[in-house]
Amino acid sequence: MKKDALLSKAISHKNWIKKYADIRNHSVEICRPLEIEDYVVQPVVDVSPPKWHLGHTTWFFETFILQPNCPDYEVFDSQYNFVFNSYYETIGARVIRTDRGNLSRPSVSDVFKYREYVDQKMDEFLQSGSLTESLESLLELGLNHEQQHQELLLTDIKYILGHNPLFPAYKKDHSLQKKKAESPEMIRFSEGIYEIGFEGEGFCFDNELGRHKVYLNDFEICTQMVTNREYLEFIEAGGYQDFRHWHAEGWDWVRQNNVKSPLYWHFVDGKWMNYTLSGLQEIDREEAVCHISFFEASAFASWKGKRLPTEAEWEVASEHFEWGKRWEWTNSAYLAYPGYKKEAGAVGEYNGKFMINQMVLRGASVATPHGHSRNTYRNFFPTQLQWQFTGIRLAQ
Amino acid sequence: MKKDALLSKAISHKNWIKKYADIRNHSVEICRPLEIEDYVVQPVVDVSPPKWHLGHTTWFFETFILQPNCPDYEVFDSQYNFVFNSYYETIGARVIRTDRGNLSRPSVSDVFKYREYVDQKMDEFLQSGSLTESLESLLELGLNHEQQHQELLLTDIKYILGHNPLFPAYKKDHSLQKKKAESPEMIRFSEGIYEIGFEGEGFCFDNELGRHKVYLNDFEICTQMVTNREYLEFIEAGGYQDFRHWHAEGWDWVRQNNVKSPLYWHFVDGKWMNYTLSGLQEIDREEAVCHISFFEASAFASWKGKRLPTEAEWEVASEHFEWGKRWEWTNSAYLAYPGYKKEAGAVGEYNGKFMINQMVLRGASVATPHGHSRNTYRNFFPTQLQWQFTGIRLAQ
Amino acid sequence: MKKDALLSKAISHKNWIKKYADIRNHSVEICRPLEIEDYVVQPVVDVSPPKWHLGHTTWFFETFILQPNCPDYEVFDSQYNFVFNSYYETIGARVIRTDRGNLSRPSVSDVFKYREYVDQKMDEFLQSGSLTESLESLLELGLNHEQQHQELLLTDIKYILGHNPLFPAYKKDHSLQKKKAESPEMIRFSEGIYEIGFEGEGFCFDNELGRHKVYLNDFEICTQMVTNREYLEFIEAGGYQDFRHWHAEGWDWVRQNNVKSPLYWHFVDGKWMNYTLSGLQEIDREEAVCHISFFEASAFASWKGKRLPTEAEWEVASEHFEWGKRWEWTNSAYLAYPGYKKEAGAVGEYNGKFMINQMVLRGASVATPHGHSRNTYRNFFPTQLQWQFTGIRLAQ
Amino acid sequence: MKKDALLSKAISHKNWIKKYADIRNHSVEICRPLEIEDYVVQPVVDVSPPKWHLGHTTWFFETFILQPNCPDYEVFDSQYNFVFNSYYETIGARVIRTDRGNLSRPSVSDVFKYREYVDQKMDEFLQSGSLTESLESLLELGLNHEQQHQELLLTDIKYILGHNPLFPAYKKDHSLQKKKAESPEMIRFSEGIYEIGFEGEGFCFDNELGRHKVYLNDFEICTQMVTNREYLEFIEAGGYQDFRHWHAEGWDWVRQNNVKSPLYWHFVDGKWMNYTLSGLQEIDREEAVCHISFFEASAFASWKGKRLPTEAEWEVASEHFEWGKRWEWTNSAYLAYPGYKKEAGAVGEYNGKFMINQMVLRGASVATPHGHSRNTYRNFFPTQLQWQFTGIRLAQ
Repeated sequence: MKKDALLSKAISHKNWIKKYADIRNHSVEICRPLEIEDYVVQPVVDVSPPKWHLGHTTWFFETFILQPNCPDYEVFDSQYNFVFNSYYETIGARVIRTDRGNLSRPSVSDVFKYREYVDQKMDEFLQSGSLTESLESLLELGLNHEQQHQELLLTDIKYILGHNPLFPAYKKDHSLQKKKAESPEMIRFSEGIYEIGFEGEGFCFDNELGRHKVYLNDFEICTQMVTNREYLEFIEAGGYQDFRHWHAEGWDWVRQNNVKSPLYWHFVDGKWMNYTLSGLQEIDREEAVCHISFFEASAFASWKGKRLPTEAEWEVASEHFEWGKRWEWTNSAYLAYPGYKKEAGAVGEYNGKFMINQMVLRGASVATPHGHSRNTYRNFFPTQLQWQFTGIRLAQ
Repeated sequence: MKKDALLSKAISHKNWIKKYADIRNHSVEICRPLEIEDYVVQPVVDVSPPKWHLGHTTWFFETFILQPNCPDYEVFDSQYNFVFNSYYETIGARVIRTDRGNLSRPSVSDVFKYREYVDQKMDEFLQSGSLTESLESLLELGLNHEQQHQELLLTDIKYILGHNPLFPAYKKDHSLQKKKAESPEMIRFSEGIYEIGFEGEGFCFDNELGRHKVYLNDFEICTQMVTNREYLEFIEAGGYQDFRHWHAEGWDWVRQNNVKSPLYWHFVDGKWMNYTLSGLQEIDREEAVCHISFFEASAFASWKGKRLPTEAEWEVASEHFEWGKRWEWTNSAYLAYPGYKKEAGAVGEYNGKFMINQMVLRGASVATPHGHSRNTYRNFFPTQLQWQFTGIRLAQ
Repeated sequence: MKKDALLSKAISHKNWIKKYADIRNHSVEICRPLEIEDYVVQPVVDVSPPKWHLGHTTWFFETFILQPNCPDYEVFDSQYNFVFNSYYETIGARVIRTDRGNLSRPSVSDVFKYREYVDQKMDEFLQSGSLTESLESLLELGLNHEQQHQELLLTDIKYILGHNPLFPAYKKDHSLQKKKAESPEMIRFSEGIYEIGFEGEGFCFDNELGRHKVYLNDFEICTQMVTNREYLEFIEAGGYQDFRHWHAEGWDWVRQNNVKSPLYWHFVDGKWMNYTLSGLQEIDREEAVCHISFFEASAFASWKGKRLPTEAEWEVASEHFEWGKRWEWTNSAYLAYPGYKKEAGAVGEYNGKFMINQMVLRGASVATPHGHSRNTYRNFFPTQLQWQFTGIRLAQ
Repeated sequence: MKKDALLSKAISHKNWIKKYADIRNHSVEICRPLEIEDYVVQPVVDVSPPKWHLGHTTWFFETFILQPNCPDYEVFDSQYNFVFNSYYETIGARVIRTDRGNLSRPSVSDVFKYREYVDQKMDEFLQSGSLTESLESLLELGLNHEQQHQELLLTDIKYILGHNPLFPAYKKDHSLQKKKAESPEMIRFSEGIYEIGFEGEGFCFDNELGRHKVYLNDFEICTQMVTNREYLEFIEAGGYQDFRHWHAEGWDWVRQNNVKSPLYWHFVDGKWMNYTLSGLQEIDREEAVCHISFFEASAFASWKGKRLPTEAEWEVASEHFEWGKRWEWTNSAYLAYPGYKKEAGAVGEYNGKFMINQMVLRGASVATPHGHSRNTYRNFFPTQLQWQFTGIRLAQ
């Protein structure tokens, strides 16, 4: 995962206890506005039912911390491993992904009992002072894993409610800290050797290591994200009908799925409406465009006569602009950094095995939990997915 | 649907009020043991979520009785037509069948409110004495429709719970009136002209009309259904591995789906177990085999050197044996009786449009509501489906 | 296949030799206008490459007559069994159907060598006078099997050429004995007991046996087939857009495949054109409509306020009208006649295993070889197929 | 395609005439051993029928050179554009890729007539001295395009013959210049700035431009390709059964397709056999492993505790080892070089639109035409394809 040397040693055990409680509690908070039925469904394969996220993050602590380290620990239910394992081949059979939405049991109430049971045992374990350095590392990984699922929880909840014909709101007055865009500007960087990748204290995922040199050519990058207003111009200029801006695979995707706009946009009575977590609303033209695939980001850039930045350009430039409202598609494939080594065992399955046919996203989004973002973070998704809070920053 | 002349005129308005309440209440009773989550999921396309059944049967009364006949009627929610329409092309857009399990809303509680609202309005309507003869006919159809869905409700609940890795019981002590089989006997019928089809007072579906002559050759039919013991002999004799007993299409189905037994059978630690509504239990060898497809019924009969009866043979012979525990596959395709005419309008979509590529089942099953069976009833399903309570009666 | 008693004993060995040569030669004649490339392709799964038909019919004689009965017979190529077996599970592995069009070898020239080799050996065998009664029966089956494939050959050739963007003609002046329709008339039959099924001397398939009684209600049947003129009226009246005339499954088929006309019809520059074996031509309005699926035949009949005849009605009435230009869809499912028994062994796979989810066609078509039709013949195809020379006769 | 400045100006018109004739003739030579039937089939979507390659390369010269530049030019057949266009959206409708193998016409003989017609017109055009600089550039592109298809021709021919159950040889004595591997050695390179990309005189594709700096870390690369012997060790060590070495997507591919070896390997009677262009032969253990997917190359490297080189590492090191027998999978995604710009018009569709979800292969193979390789060449294929002559070189 990362070297013990990278562990933030300053955080005392007491701090871990509080941090564990805070982060675990935040997952529950995210789900508070839901009806029980909302916890259960899986409208598409990429979305997981909220109760599955709640169970799966709990299963992580049970399986990787409590079971191997607490001799007296009794698993809450021996069948939950089968239900809540996600893709860890090392750890027994698992419910295939498309089946998650078919499972009415364990009930939501049982999943919450499972969380309480494990949280209680974790608290006892942390109180007991048995946290070694390597366990600290694993605990930190588990909490970052939970934060990743907090973002997915919100993303998946939006998908579940936003694909219901009744368009129910998540929270009537939910505001994802919108901020009007300022006027965009291109900042220039000169060619030469730069360094990217994580270094120093604090947590990072293994895919951010190690800090290494890259050679960049002269480039310019925009201080602002592309807005809905600009994206509407692309739509109205026939961007979705002009194959020249699209990758061949992207063009097939557009035609096969009859894509005509970002996800959640609906053309109703001559107006573009947008499903938001507060319900269906008119498009806000000054907001950064959201919920677009890599194919759309790339086609838009091509139409503008520009391009997407590489992840190295983004990281180098990131101190010079504001980021964090949208995951920003880069034109970098998700591949290993020089010297990358997979960890042994189940934890090593975490990142390396996904390093193919996905593109890197940088930054963070309005759905990312507080304290879970840094400018070396490498998010990644397949090129056709729209359901994340994704946007576009142009470069040239 | 059927001629006014066929209406049971003896049932007074008062009786209709009680009958309506009783039948509607029974649907609610069937769902009582469920968790809220169980109402929502749809593990395969043939299964509908319980809350959909509850809403759809309610929608029938709202759409076909209240809306056209009560001038002041206000629909409970105008979007429910979209959600709860099943296959009626006449009545606007509908949620495509595979999507039913993706809908967390309307919530279970809202669906029950919908039922209460419509039941209240129906009660007022019935109390008002506005029931004409043709409306009586439609009301009776709606109640029979609800009873059909009661059977599907139980069937689908079994599928939902029986395909959950935790194998939860529906009711711990649920007994579907098992009865040990007596020793089987072949009864003989001589060739000649017979009559089949519905005649007389009381309700029937349009596909049971009209009473007509058929010519039957000499045949024999068994007084007993095939038992699990006999079916196990077929399995153990390699029945699922011997193409000679199968239709070409059935053999493809066996191989593509790796079918090795009736639905709900599991070979665990050297023993055949059976998921029942009371949970996973050892096979009861004296019980009639259940949850088999037409392909399996036909292959079994071929292996025994016998055949399935035609629906005419079954109906003619039905007074001479007990039936009602399993729907009995016949070797008759589901086609129109001589002189069959579709009704005009949405109600006419009920039966005729399914008269292709399905086989007729006769009798009734342990899941059929009381008072909803007769020996002219024509049930029908595609040849590969196992999820109904289906069984085998042999003929020769 | 059929009882020895049914064998036409009058045909001497000499006659068999000539009959064998004539029928075998006719297959070659059908292929004479083809380019080598035309023998190879398989545009859809239901069509087989012409060279496969030529090899498969040859394989039948090699496998079922020469190999078991000529002790010194050497197979032409031991791998041909794998290539030219169609669906006989008894006789080893076979090339799965969708793969037939991927095989460039054996070359066309090798397939003709195979035919010559087997024909030479068959001639020697027949000359030797070793034809027993049961072998005579098998020989006759093989020749009828070859004739069935002659019809398929022409049907498949039409599909191959008619789905090529160059629309090449099979023969520039190919005439399929068109004959203008006379004015249609309904003939009436009274209810009562009738007999259907094959009886007497001469060949029949096992599915035509045995002669048996049926009870028919009063019915009327038309003396003429439906013409292109009438079918165009259906199209222009919006028949393909009105779900009320279609089976639910047929309606899905229309929408999923965007069906708008019979196969081979093309709306070009405001005119309906028709690909014929002589190339693309304007629709002949007085000709019987051709290349329609069961779904279309049934929807047309419903639109006309009529219905398709049952196979029993058709057979009973068949002496009173001309038939043989189009295979006529009936509303009878393809099921066993009373008392039907499958033969043992590979030959027994011939008919019984297809007796599910197909509809019966009666009569014959312009593509049926001379001497291969009779009014008890039961052809059968799935409900969505258009590629046969199929038409509509109405009843009521 | 590339700057006029990059044109090899030294080649006189005379040389172009000869070069055109030589390269065009080589395509015909490759097809000489084929039967007519072999030109027609398309066993999988990635393979094109040989006659399609012959027509498509001809169509390139007709469409991009003759039509726009010879005022009197008459197209050979106006429907061929529809048949022989590959993926150029700019140039009208095209036969969708899966349909190529369904077309028996134009016949092979017509395709050869088409070639002769266009070659005659091209010769006249070149003789007339009308070749401007930009046309020279286009001509050169057309010839390189033809050479790419020559490689695909051989690759596809191997697939067509190698997937025929008769395993016909392409040429009985075909030798693809096998050469025994020498003992492998790791060569070391120090970290620093290197330059990659095409520069100088002569032809290159647009994706090789422009020459640019990259920063490489210390790395080592092997002088030899991985042999069949080594790959067999991987198989025998259970490499295809151990998920730890595979990308998640690769592991799904292995299981869904039941992959157990490189393409063309068959385990027959306890021995690994290999279909070669000379027929089925025992594995040559000293030969470089061939016909493996990126997933397999990457899994093998992981099993060996090594990795695949990046394309920059490969290019920098390429002068220090022999290459050209196998296309070598790199761990670089196929993306644009810094400053890459698509050409306008149809020619601009050539490379840029494929720059997603494919991996770069470097070098050349035994199937690459003479004179069509250079160490800046960027080949690319999706990660699951095995049908190219691909191999593995390890790095660390």
